[in-house]
Amino acid sequence: MISNYYMPTKVLMGSDCVVRNSGLLRQLGRKALLVTGRQSAKQNGSEKDMKEALGSAGIEYAVFDRVMSNPTIACVYEGAALARENKVDFIIGIGGGSPMDAAKAIALLAAQDIEEQDLFSGNYPNKVLPMAFVPTTAGTGSEVTPYSILTNDQAQTKTSIASEFLFPRMAFLDARYTQSLSAVTTINTALDALSHAVEGMLSVKASRISDALAINSIRMIMECMPALRESFKAGDPGKVDLRQREILLQASLIAGMVIAQTGTTVVHAMGYSLTYFHDIDHGRANGLLLAEYLKLVEQENPELAGRILTGMNFSTAEEFKALTDELLGHKEALTEKEIMEYSRKTLKTKNMDNCLVKPDQEEIEQIYVSSFQS
Amino acid sequence: MISNYYMPTKVLMGSDCVVRNSGLLRQLGRKALLVTGRQSAKQNGSEKDMKEALGSAGIEYAVFDRVMSNPTIACVYEGAALARENKVDFIIGIGGGSPMDAAKAIALLAAQDIEEQDLFSGNYPNKVLPMAFVPTTAGTGSEVTPYSILTNDQAQTKTSIASEFLFPRMAFLDARYTQSLSAVTTINTALDALSHAVEGMLSVKASRISDALAINSIRMIMECMPALRESFKAGDPGKVDLRQREILLQASLIAGMVIAQTGTTVVHAMGYSLTYFHDIDHGRANGLLLAEYLKLVEQENPELAGRILTGMNFSTAEEFKALTDELLGHKEALTEKEIMEYSRKTLKTKNMDNCLVKPDQEEIEQIYVSSFQS
Repeated sequence: MISNYYMPTKVLMGSDCVVRNSGLLRQLGRKALLVTGRQSAKQNGSEKDMKEALGSAGIEYAVFDRVMSNPTIACVYEGAALARENKVDFIIGIGGGSPMDAAKAIALLAAQDIEEQDLFSGNYPNKVLPMAFVPTTAGTGSEVTPYSILTNDQAQTKTSIASEFLFPRMAFLDARYTQSLSAVTTINTALDALSHAVEGMLSVKASRISDALAINSIRMIMECMPALRESFKAGDPGKVDLRQREILLQASLIAGMVIAQTGTTVVHAMGYSLTYFHDIDHGRANGLLLAEYLKLVEQENPELAGRILTGMNFSTAEEFKALTDELLGHKEALTEKEIMEYSRKTLKTKNMDNCLVKPDQEEIEQIYVSSFQS
Repeated sequence: MISNYYMPTKVLMGSDCVVRNSGLLRQLGRKALLVTGRQSAKQNGSEKDMKEALGSAGIEYAVFDRVMSNPTIACVYEGAALARENKVDFIIGIGGGSPMDAAKAIALLAAQDIEEQDLFSGNYPNKVLPMAFVPTTAGTGSEVTPYSILTNDQAQTKTSIASEFLFPRMAFLDARYTQSLSAVTTINTALDALSHAVEGMLSVKASRISDALAINSIRMIMECMPALRESFKAGDPGKVDLRQREILLQASLIAGMVIAQTGTTVVHAMGYSLTYFHDIDHGRANGLLLAEYLKLVEQENPELAGRILTGMNFSTAEEFKALTDELLGHKEALTEKEIMEYSRKTLKTKNMDNCLVKPDQEEIEQIYVSSFQS
């Protein structure tokens, strides 16, 4: 029973928590770089609130609003150059996983020189600008993880920088910002969070602490499932009300605390190819694959699968598969050749060592095949 | 659903974790003050391991081994003077709650001048020596809380310094150190941890995160209850084996993470008088009072009591009372006058505001009376 625990981020929650806690930002410095995507932070009110908080705290800022989905290495070097040019003391990341993960790499690259080929090594001194994060989706949990996941064109996949220096110093969780998400994004991000909680329990690094958090996160997301299903059917994000969005945002936070300890498994590794080669949204990719992997776990380690499924209020992985099928709608097509290639790529990832149930190449191929059958 | 979360301590676990992670201590400085009780750290091997770790990390140290049970204010000023005299960079606390709580106050008083009358105000700048803790009982959770609880002779009770600067930077959990505890101390400390988990769920600051952790801690402690009962009956601490001691130490850690978020309730407030005036061990004091308070909660908020009791695998608070009665043996006697005085003292504590179910004076008196009936 050896397991360590570390998650030093201070988490503030509740409506208007950014403005209410503006004084805290002063602990991080006198000038900030706001890192956001192109649109969403402007539309959902989070950027406006942060600017108001910075104003009342007397903190200057510059803005880098050019983070794309699945941010590239070029993007984070560009952001870091802007941070240096403006001599900022700290980084504020606002958005879903893409702006937050980019903000982490920017905070690192603004504080020290790292060559592109060394970026994913994790071997650098503890020099990083402090960070404050505002998640505006309920899925990634990046606000409480030490991971920055970037598009790695050289390896033709997404690769993570993992370093405990990358934990943000503070995170502000205000579920109102998730109200302007589409129904599809609401669902995909919820499936991402669910995947984190489930994969945390399937990790060799799972502990009593991470399992306690994971089961609770699973229960919270399942509590919102009827609303998510309604939302999918009606194509209306409004079917998930603010109270449920608060539950989902906390569930995503808790699932982030889980993977901060456990890392992710083969599901994430398999999903990265779907995102890299087919532009399938990250949460959707995990949602597509999770049930079929859980079926394998059910065969190989029924006790483990049972604990997860009980948390979902299901008896079999097949019931969970029916739920994800319902939420994911029409599925993309993969060729046999693609499946073989992605399976080979998956087998080479560190995520394989992290799996309590390790699938072989044939099993990975079968998970891809079954996951994309309608 | 407003609730914040913060617990920045890095926790290392497992047999020999102090020596295995000696390099981490270098992050805290080049010279340390070891703060311990008079005997236990020498007897259970923890001090020897820490000295070996410091040796291999090339860190100098001085030793302050004069912390008594329920440490006084004089004691922590004395320790701080020694820390200053030796110009140490950081503080290492080894022991149960008393040495760890003293070590926190010493770390604070070594870093800044605070007059005795201001010590409990919590209003001072963020200046404190960094700390590394080694709990050698499975009860207090002090290694992951921002509280230092000291004997306050002026107020004739125990009073806490609460400041988020007081979180230790790291904690090393090796259950072997708890193997030399007596059966009675093993039981009393387990009841302390159980009380933390239960009181966390009874706090107005309870959240989804703290409840998830609390329920798990309760389940883990209850899992060890058969062994604790055997141990009590036989007067033999060996009936609680190393695996169960690991579970209890993690349960105590998790319960500490809970009260770091939620604080404690009327049970702790009532218990402080028992410790101050009757020298009743802190864990035993909580154990004596918890069941009767839970009976009141069962009346006033059956849903809340039900969630806690379900975690214990009990249907009624009466069943829990039978368990604690069994574990606590012969009870001390309180006079009517004492009960009235302690009840008045309890009502004046901040802990009252923290209770989801707030007892009035008469109810507090009744809890004392019923708790001490055989």
